[in-house]
Amino acid sequence: KNNLPPSKPLFQPRLFSTGLHGASVFVTGRRQAVLDAAVADMRSCGVSTVAGIQGDVRKPEDVERWVRVATAPASSSALDVLVNCAAGNFLAAADALSANGFRTVLDIDAVGTFSTSRAALPALKRAAERNGSGGGGGGGGASATSSSSSSPVIINISATLHYGATWWQAHACAAKAAVDALTRSLALEWGEFGVRVCGVAPGPIAGTAGLSKLSGSGGKGDGIAEAIAALVPLGRLGSAWDIAMACVWLSSAGSRFTSGDTLVVDGAAWLWRPPAVPRAVVAEVSRKVEAGSRAMTKVGAGAAAASRL
Amino acid sequence: KNNLPPSKPLFQPRLFSTGLHGASVFVTGRRQAVLDAAVADMRSCGVSTVAGIQGDVRKPEDVERWVRVATAPASSSALDVLVNCAAGNFLAAADALSANGFRTVLDIDAVGTFSTSRAALPALKRAAERNGSGGGGGGGGASATSSSSSSPVIINISATLHYGATWWQAHACAAKAAVDALTRSLALEWGEFGVRVCGVAPGPIAGTAGLSKLSGSGGKGDGIAEAIAALVPLGRLGSAWDIAMACVWLSSAGSRFTSGDTLVVDGAAWLWRPPAVPRAVVAEVSRKVEAGSRAMTKVGAGAAAASRL
Amino acid sequence: KNNLPPSKPLFQPRLFSTGLHGASVFVTGRRQAVLDAAVADMRSCGVSTVAGIQGDVRKPEDVERWVRVATAPASSSALDVLVNCAAGNFLAAADALSANGFRTVLDIDAVGTFSTSRAALPALKRAAERNGSGGGGGGGGASATSSSSSSPVIINISATLHYGATWWQAHACAAKAAVDALTRSLALEWGEFGVRVCGVAPGPIAGTAGLSKLSGSGGKGDGIAEAIAALVPLGRLGSAWDIAMACVWLSSAGSRFTSGDTLVVDGAAWLWRPPAVPRAVVAEVSRKVEAGSRAMTKVGAGAAAASRL
Amino acid sequence: KNNLPPSKPLFQPRLFSTGLHGASVFVTGRRQAVLDAAVADMRSCGVSTVAGIQGDVRKPEDVERWVRVATAPASSSALDVLVNCAAGNFLAAADALSANGFRTVLDIDAVGTFSTSRAALPALKRAAERNGSGGGGGGGGASATSSSSSSPVIINISATLHYGATWWQAHACAAKAAVDALTRSLALEWGEFGVRVCGVAPGPIAGTAGLSKLSGSGGKGDGIAEAIAALVPLGRLGSAWDIAMACVWLSSAGSRFTSGDTLVVDGAAWLWRPPAVPRAVVAEVSRKVEAGSRAMTKVGAGAAAASRL
Repeated sequence: KNNLPPSKPLFQPRLFSTGLHGASVFVTGRRQAVLDAAVADMRSCGVSTVAGIQGDVRKPEDVERWVRVATAPASSSALDVLVNCAAGNFLAAADALSANGFRTVLDIDAVGTFSTSRAALPALKRAAERNGSGGGGGGGGASATSSSSSSPVIINISATLHYGATWWQAHACAAKAAVDALTRSLALEWGEFGVRVCGVAPGPIAGTAGLSKLSGSGGKGDGIAEAIAALVPLGRLGSAWDIAMACVWLSSAGSRFTSGDTLVVDGAAWLWRPPAVPRAVVAEVSRKVEAGSRAMTKVGAGAAAASRL
Repeated sequence: KNNLPPSKPLFQPRLFSTGLHGASVFVTGRRQAVLDAAVADMRSCGVSTVAGIQGDVRKPEDVERWVRVATAPASSSALDVLVNCAAGNFLAAADALSANGFRTVLDIDAVGTFSTSRAALPALKRAAERNGSGGGGGGGGASATSSSSSSPVIINISATLHYGATWWQAHACAAKAAVDALTRSLALEWGEFGVRVCGVAPGPIAGTAGLSKLSGSGGKGDGIAEAIAALVPLGRLGSAWDIAMACVWLSSAGSRFTSGDTLVVDGAAWLWRPPAVPRAVVAEVSRKVEAGSRAMTKVGAGAAAASRL
Repeated sequence: KNNLPPSKPLFQPRLFSTGLHGASVFVTGRRQAVLDAAVADMRSCGVSTVAGIQGDVRKPEDVERWVRVATAPASSSALDVLVNCAAGNFLAAADALSANGFRTVLDIDAVGTFSTSRAALPALKRAAERNGSGGGGGGGGASATSSSSSSPVIINISATLHYGATWWQAHACAAKAAVDALTRSLALEWGEFGVRVCGVAPGPIAGTAGLSKLSGSGGKGDGIAEAIAALVPLGRLGSAWDIAMACVWLSSAGSRFTSGDTLVVDGAAWLWRPPAVPRAVVAEVSRKVEAGSRAMTKVGAGAAAASRL
Repeated sequence: KNNLPPSKPLFQPRLFSTGLHGASVFVTGRRQAVLDAAVADMRSCGVSTVAGIQGDVRKPEDVERWVRVATAPASSSALDVLVNCAAGNFLAAADALSANGFRTVLDIDAVGTFSTSRAALPALKRAAERNGSGGGGGGGGASATSSSSSSPVIINISATLHYGATWWQAHACAAKAAVDALTRSLALEWGEFGVRVCGVAPGPIAGTAGLSKLSGSGGKGDGIAEAIAALVPLGRLGSAWDIAMACVWLSSAGSRFTSGDTLVVDGAAWLWRPPAVPRAVVAEVSRKVEAGSRAMTKVGAGAAAASRL
């Protein structure tokens, strides 16, 4: 019987058993203790090859060093996937935020994404050459060969805060808008090197520092998560797994023709606004509208105003 | 003393005295009584040359006739400004809306905007030729001559409903998104004829059928307007005058280099979403963040994850 | 050695062997011969359970019948995935296009997407209830259970034509903008039923009717494909496989927190515009800028103009 | 005879005679000589009250001083209009740009816009209080009073480079995207103070440093302007006057309900891409399509694919 969801054999079973699909993972961060915990955590999930490299994304020399370590002879000179996920954030009314506070967030998010991408480019190009995905070759044919070769990719984690605007997040909105623009610019310029540049924009994700900070709860109030979930059309918060899966997809051959786009993983949360009228009321209203046989004719007066000056 | 707002001498005094800046105005609509009232209303405001022409924007032959009447020999064969403002709308949950109801709104808004624009194009081209704004000539010089000649323009009234999404408005969202796309497409294709194509996207406007319909109030509840105004960052509803002024601007020489853009006149309403935290709370939080000398260092761990596959 | 791309074990092997991941597939279309060919083609690829159902997406009664057949007792009353890919298109200058031609494209693309989605909603809701993905439950926890259950999804195929605008495609731009708006509206309204609504926006795809039509080649000139590939940052056309993989991803549990978003699969093509200056020239220019030690100071005069009226 | 364009009496005559509509103008900049030239230039145009204040937008203390000088007791403690137009730009391939070069452009454009806006906020609030436009009052009525009072406004000059992406402008694209996001965020947060925040996005403007730099011409080649004008749908470059008029409009009472929006003044330039097929060819193609009576039926096969898993 073929009634199983296709996603089961496709995604789930391998995830926590073989660990991140066989990738050698390097994690970077400013604080050694946090790094160590992250590495231990990944190992306990079955990621066998993982290392932490200390450094500050705001220091170009640290960023250069990260790439050198990750592509040292002992491992490989090529890099297949770069995930830029550094983010500084906190709640602040724009009128009470210093220029320095604003700049810091842009430095971490936008400048950090740029400088890491630029430092990693040579190693990403080498991966493209190795995979045969560089140089614009290959044509569009879905031959077995081309369909199995992935192309190296930069994945920029941004947000949905700036689709419209978000209260007390002027700094993060500006920074994430800059990151999304960078995703597009680098996709345009680096496509000819066989390097793709994509984005992932998470919505509210359970258990993250972001969620507890930005809800103003400091992670204490348990009711906060429920309150936020109620504002998500899908009715729940996302999980770290959801974001991971988006990155896995963007790293796979399945997305080899996607570049420049930012994939939104937010349960449609950014679309939510309070409805002017509850569903029960509108259901009654629209029943009336559809019922009347003259309803549609009543809908609106076709009108255009033309002026001759 | 020169402390008066510049807008006073610029816009206000002439508006209600000489009436729509001297334009000959033709209004179209499906119901004769509504048309007559509109014409009478404009006359009472001082618009001396105004006429109503009955017809349905969904009937191509009506649309063709409108243009013929408005450009009859007795008046002028050229048309300077076309305002497409036909709109059908009502509240309906998407799951309770018939395909026919959905199609009707697209027909009025999107097809109506297209067919009226296309029918008016020859008359708009004639205006461009008369004004010397056609054919891409003129260069960018701000000479007295070029600054005083306006170029003919189509103004498409759409909405902000589809920036994101709006509850119970799937039909209007689709239709207005189509109209905005049309604004861009026609701007691209018709620029070489010297015809500009712009849009105006109104937010909640006091005293309109739209507001009373879409708030589900039928215009009865007075509290509704206040409730909606509270969701507008500028703290009030717009007025018909605000929309008129946007059209005046887009019809003027001052906007002669604007085409393809839709000007939003909504008091920033589409940006509004309920704040996760009230201003008073965030003020306190951000005071603490800025106060601590180590605050900025705490902001976020610069982090990037690089994986080599 | 763990140097294989993660995409290999993840996506590739099952694809052409077991056929569309075990789904029972129903294809609809207007012409029986085309349907038969499509079904035969899929069978030859290993899709075992596939059937064609004739009908016109513009006729609500046909659409209702499609859903009835696809959810008949013999199969299943639930539907997991609906792909709306009907599209009418042709090249036409807007000033030479009839209102009827414009309306037809909106009818097929936008109204068709709406009416099929609405007709399928009850069957999609049943799938959500069966999977336990409905009703907003589940929280954000990435438990084994929740991570393995996909949620039913509507996938609307649109385009990138209306990101900006595209010559001679005013009708398709308007229609696809309407479809994208519909994706957002339905995601907002139907999330509470556990139904996701997503989009896929293909760029230039090799071997499609769209590509040969829209390039004006009628599929004859072989040079056309190369000429278009040169305008794609990734340097090649996409393949049908690329679009299929995006749909597979959106149908999988991996995307269970994505709704309302349209995934762009275009090789970054919509971002391409002719560079004002070739890479070789800009490389020389920027070398000079970076070289000079005073370069950055020269970059720009920080300036702000404040006026007090 | 009422056939004159409405824009003539509305905008043009006062512009160069009374000078910027009676405003007292303060201009800021880093280099004294440039400032002096700008002030002299404005005086020669009839702007009677104008002063230059030296400083660097990247230094918060300079920015604070600017606002102090512009609102010193001798003049007025209120500020009606703030135009943020600082911009650093140059051509650079992203792979050849240093992190420092990237950061400098963000500092000037985005941080500069933020810090100047924040410093000016108290003076803008005073203007709102003086005009009675603060506090969300007034309702939507178009009374003579409300229609004549403008509300203070911040105007952020950005660009269209990041609508999509622009070659060799990753830094400017990121910076301008950040500015546009800031326009939206500040509009959301500061609306309740009666302060509007708008943007103007210029396209190619004749005679600007931007145009000569970004075209790679250094201002020498005269053919460059013509070449660029050919890529503008309106067929010409814009002028400084066009940008000025957009600012005048946004400063006037006519735009009092516009906030959060960025007005594009680019002749539809950002929409331009090379047409796949020239107009003459498409005209012939579409004639054939419309001619055949069965044409529309041929247009496209209504098709939807439904899969049940």
